[in-house]
Amino acid sequence: MSIKPIQYHDGKCLMIDQRLLPGREEWREYDDYRGIAEAIRDMVIRGAPAIGVAAAFGVAFGARDIEAADFEEFYPELEAVCQLLASTRPTAVNLCWALERGKRFARRHHGIPLGDIRKGLLDLAVKMAEEDERINRTLGRHGHRLIPPGARILTHCNAGALATAGYGTALGVIRAAFEAGKKISVFADETRPWLQGARLTAWELLRDGIPTTLICDNAAGHLMACGEVDCVIVGADRIAANGDTANKIGTYTLAVLCKEHGLPFFVAAPLSTIDHSLADGSSIPIEERSREEVIRHGGVELAPAGIAVRNPAFDVTPARLISAIITEAGILRPDRQGDFGLSIKPFRNPSLPDE
Amino acid sequence: MSIKPIQYHDGKCLMIDQRLLPGREEWREYDDYRGIAEAIRDMVIRGAPAIGVAAAFGVAFGARDIEAADFEEFYPELEAVCQLLASTRPTAVNLCWALERGKRFARRHHGIPLGDIRKGLLDLAVKMAEEDERINRTLGRHGHRLIPPGARILTHCNAGALATAGYGTALGVIRAAFEAGKKISVFADETRPWLQGARLTAWELLRDGIPTTLICDNAAGHLMACGEVDCVIVGADRIAANGDTANKIGTYTLAVLCKEHGLPFFVAAPLSTIDHSLADGSSIPIEERSREEVIRHGGVELAPAGIAVRNPAFDVTPARLISAIITEAGILRPDRQGDFGLSIKPFRNPSLPDE
Repeated sequence: MSIKPIQYHDGKCLMIDQRLLPGREEWREYDDYRGIAEAIRDMVIRGAPAIGVAAAFGVAFGARDIEAADFEEFYPELEAVCQLLASTRPTAVNLCWALERGKRFARRHHGIPLGDIRKGLLDLAVKMAEEDERINRTLGRHGHRLIPPGARILTHCNAGALATAGYGTALGVIRAAFEAGKKISVFADETRPWLQGARLTAWELLRDGIPTTLICDNAAGHLMACGEVDCVIVGADRIAANGDTANKIGTYTLAVLCKEHGLPFFVAAPLSTIDHSLADGSSIPIEERSREEVIRHGGVELAPAGIAVRNPAFDVTPARLISAIITEAGILRPDRQGDFGLSIKPFRNPSLPDE
Repeated sequence: MSIKPIQYHDGKCLMIDQRLLPGREEWREYDDYRGIAEAIRDMVIRGAPAIGVAAAFGVAFGARDIEAADFEEFYPELEAVCQLLASTRPTAVNLCWALERGKRFARRHHGIPLGDIRKGLLDLAVKMAEEDERINRTLGRHGHRLIPPGARILTHCNAGALATAGYGTALGVIRAAFEAGKKISVFADETRPWLQGARLTAWELLRDGIPTTLICDNAAGHLMACGEVDCVIVGADRIAANGDTANKIGTYTLAVLCKEHGLPFFVAAPLSTIDHSLADGSSIPIEERSREEVIRHGGVELAPAGIAVRNPAFDVTPARLISAIITEAGILRPDRQGDFGLSIKPFRNPSLPDE
């Protein structure tokens, strides 16, 4: 049973503090939107889908605390709540998507009592958490068709249960293949600087008994050259209309290595990761995070204090390097020009109920 | 003035402890070959040329301590000393080269008093240290012709003064370009797991005032895709006759990225790094180091204790991905098939005096 890193109980949102894993399993409680914004910014919770769910609770808690006489007073305040939440992490589009979904719900129900809108937004957040796990299980079932028995799968960062409301995206595919008895094994890139692979992916796959070997990011190319990797699966933070995909820094390098070695490179992500408004990846904002993440770990200095540092947190993998995008709606493939053709927004996301 | 990490004073070999940099600058003293073997194995000293020089002192100290009545008793003991030293690190060929050079010196002087052979071996070690720095300065002068003014150079691991007896190989080229006023700048890969880039390259380039930016290994591809890198220069631990080059894990990935982005990929190494006996890189032994290097740093746990780990310390970059090999004899280029054609051992290394 994979972990559910974000849970709702009794007016509060609980999150396992991912900054402390694997050393300590501590849960934090949040009951206001500012706390949730801080949790996202400081990476108590991370992973595009999980951030989306956290943001939905932020909207619900924000709405609950807005003092307003009517919708006209309420809605601008709700927008301000969303703006703060949106400012926490720029790259993951699921964050904006969750905020938009909350605002749209409020607008649609303009006219009903504010108390019902508030309750509706909380129900929506709870539903989005359940939905996310269900989406990942569906995505996993689609994706594992791509995984041959015995496959040695390399993954980067953590696109696991910890990055979602449960089960995971890239690790959802891996879990589905494992549960189907395919005897797969996993190489987990440690994923500097935040070590999501070493700290989170290794932890959750070990916990689920899925055979996993931790490697430094530097070793991926060598293992491919030695014929020890059969495919790469990663998650995504934002997918542009042509299929260009922003994901954790180092993902692009893996895609280039897959091309060099003729290996399939798969992206696993819910449809909510697709930003239909961006023609390609060139305008996806790339978050630069602090130098501290690179030069220090656990209080230990890793580099001389005076050194300049660049710390881009994401990179963009061009669609032409992506073999397939695995979603809850099925497996998306590029055309001959390497374009995934996702500019048309679906009329309704088939995996989601009406709200 | 770049640092000289291995120095001889008064019967003792001094080495700056590279495990403690950049936090602490501590020098260790060695006066027997077993201590030197341990220093190489534990990476007090590292870097192929520096290991070669350290091994030469190991041979000299070993020879000094051999109790033997004549050459026939002496030489097998010397071979045993060399065998222990050779077993410390398998990949760097400079180690074997230095040991061979010591044994050859002894054999050539068979017949002279043992005391003179012992003294000769010590003189040889001192000479090899001086020679190594001179070689690097020559190599740097050749190599900087390849570096355009204003070049943004990416380097991996530490092929610097700290990896040699002084000045450095890849960083020797960078120093020569900087000293020639070319206004270059450097991206230093942090180089997991041992962080030679973050701990050593950043430290020595900062010390010399060469503009340097530290990045995680994962960021190299992204910076290339953004057009922020003009070339890559790395050192080498062993170069096969066709030009295939073993170097620090992650080097191969950089070479693949250079190919993808049409960037030149340079190897800088003394001629002693060439293993004329190996047709290609497939038989270069790749050292696997301990899991501890990956899952722990400075006493801090980076991964769950039970996780399996692979930790190859080197990889092999095929000759076809190498634009040029920069040596003290000049710049070696591949033929149209991407072969450097180094199977013929030079009659005499032109940069070395007779012994």
